[in-house]
Amino acid sequence: MAVYTLVPAEALAALLARYDVGTLVSAKGIAEGVENSNFLVETTADRFILTLYEKRVAAGDLPFFLAVLDHLAMAGRPVPPAIPDRNGRTIQEVEGRPACLIRFLPGVSLATPTPRQAAAAAHELGAMHAALQSFAQHRENSLGIKAWGPLLQRCGNALEAIAPGLHDALTRHLDDVQQGWSALDGLPRSVIHADLFPDNVLMLGDTVTGLIDFYFACTDIRLYDLAVMHTSWSFDATGHSFAPDVARALLDGYADSFGLDRAARAALPVLARGACIRFALTRAWDWLNTPADALVTRKDPLAYLRRADFYAAHGKALFDA
Amino acid sequence: MAVYTLVPAEALAALLARYDVGTLVSAKGIAEGVENSNFLVETTADRFILTLYEKRVAAGDLPFFLAVLDHLAMAGRPVPPAIPDRNGRTIQEVEGRPACLIRFLPGVSLATPTPRQAAAAAHELGAMHAALQSFAQHRENSLGIKAWGPLLQRCGNALEAIAPGLHDALTRHLDDVQQGWSALDGLPRSVIHADLFPDNVLMLGDTVTGLIDFYFACTDIRLYDLAVMHTSWSFDATGHSFAPDVARALLDGYADSFGLDRAARAALPVLARGACIRFALTRAWDWLNTPADALVTRKDPLAYLRRADFYAAHGKALFDA
Repeated sequence: MAVYTLVPAEALAALLARYDVGTLVSAKGIAEGVENSNFLVETTADRFILTLYEKRVAAGDLPFFLAVLDHLAMAGRPVPPAIPDRNGRTIQEVEGRPACLIRFLPGVSLATPTPRQAAAAAHELGAMHAALQSFAQHRENSLGIKAWGPLLQRCGNALEAIAPGLHDALTRHLDDVQQGWSALDGLPRSVIHADLFPDNVLMLGDTVTGLIDFYFACTDIRLYDLAVMHTSWSFDATGHSFAPDVARALLDGYADSFGLDRAARAALPVLARGACIRFALTRAWDWLNTPADALVTRKDPLAYLRRADFYAAHGKALFDA
Repeated sequence: MAVYTLVPAEALAALLARYDVGTLVSAKGIAEGVENSNFLVETTADRFILTLYEKRVAAGDLPFFLAVLDHLAMAGRPVPPAIPDRNGRTIQEVEGRPACLIRFLPGVSLATPTPRQAAAAAHELGAMHAALQSFAQHRENSLGIKAWGPLLQRCGNALEAIAPGLHDALTRHLDDVQQGWSALDGLPRSVIHADLFPDNVLMLGDTVTGLIDFYFACTDIRLYDLAVMHTSWSFDATGHSFAPDVARALLDGYADSFGLDRAARAALPVLARGACIRFALTRAWDWLNTPADALVTRKDPLAYLRRADFYAAHGKALFDA
């Protein structure tokens, strides 16, 4: 949640001169996205987000991410496309980093979505999935199920410093999920967002105005996207408190736009538990590798262990129609 | 340069409901100001900056700062006034912090101002000083000359960890400045900005659109404001390279709007050297008290020692008409 690279206004004005977007009126570094530098840029013509990609986004993956954004925007989904400059280029270099100028979208991310808002967001997820059925590109999910075992191993006993028993608890969940996953082979695969937390959905009232931050987008079981959403929208931040009406609204909203058959519902408990392992592990890794006094907020891995426990206990009942 | 406190969109919408400013359309945490949390807030009616005051700004000083902003805005200066809510209150509490909704101003801060831009900014400083002649409130400068000795002492030998000889060099500068300062007793005192670096001036082309970040504003020798500006606008960031045309433009611009007589010019060398001590010391203090791996950029105290050396060597010649 910080701006890592400063861009002098003079450099920004020079960058904008390559585009047909008017001239610079205002630019503010904004705290958005995980590990990129973002600027809200206003010109005489419009507003944009300028993103400089820091180490976490591989420059080689950028064309894929931009193709997803472009495909979805063309399909009428509320997704911000990258703007091409006068020579048709969307990827620039700014202060030594790959950078894109992206359309600004109105709306705010909600901390505590209501059931109606959750339904609208899941409805939009379904519409996004429908639009992505005609998208042909492919990107391996580097944080998919194959990565969880090695990541757990790399965290190793250091996990005990976060909470005694955490390593064993995650190992147990992972064993169960790996067993259950073999039954999911028949589920359709597709490009997915893979990180559709409430932070990454912009809304005005009950209307979705933007899906953002596609920098984990990848090819995986399509329904995993809904599982990620379920784990992140249906609980409070601590993972202690489950909101059954929000959870139900997510399933209803998705069913309404994309459909959700019996086989899909049967797969959701293991997919959701898998998503919990993914976020528990990456949060644990970041926790162990972020100095306690750094200004980024470390997110609590235990909030995701609690969710995994919850799905293990109640998963089947949750997803029945 | 970070957002320290997160404000949920729901809390922000509730805050805005107290005002006649339309409803929430967008909110982004922005990297502006030294140690406050700032949000660029867009409503159906207008755009605003919401500032939450963190520890560095004493809540008791806020009414003074807001009175300065209000006085200057009423006088037609490009300064963002705080917006009163329907009950006339400008200071709110948000997430446990004092907070103000402030008018958004267009414009960008320049990294490398041209002489024309420097002249315009100093011209605006003079106009601000003229407007403040009718402002009656008073606030002690807690980072004025009386504070420099004790601050140097608190830094102590730790300064040697930044650069060998730094403690002695600053002591020597401080001795000279304290001696020279006694001749400044006759200079007019006034409320000043006290931190008018290029970051704190918004411009569009050669036009000043905003003076911002008044959270060091205080009562001191009026001309000290121009001295601070001279030290921060006339050098590159390292303090190695001096831009004589920018420096001259600052004096011309200020002389043009407020006047700059022989006595004032004679006082500027010691005032500028004093300003260098102030920023060298506060930067050194922050340097010694900021972990090297924190995400805030530590500013180099030596860049201000170099400026102090420069003024000691060339000060008299610089400020002659």
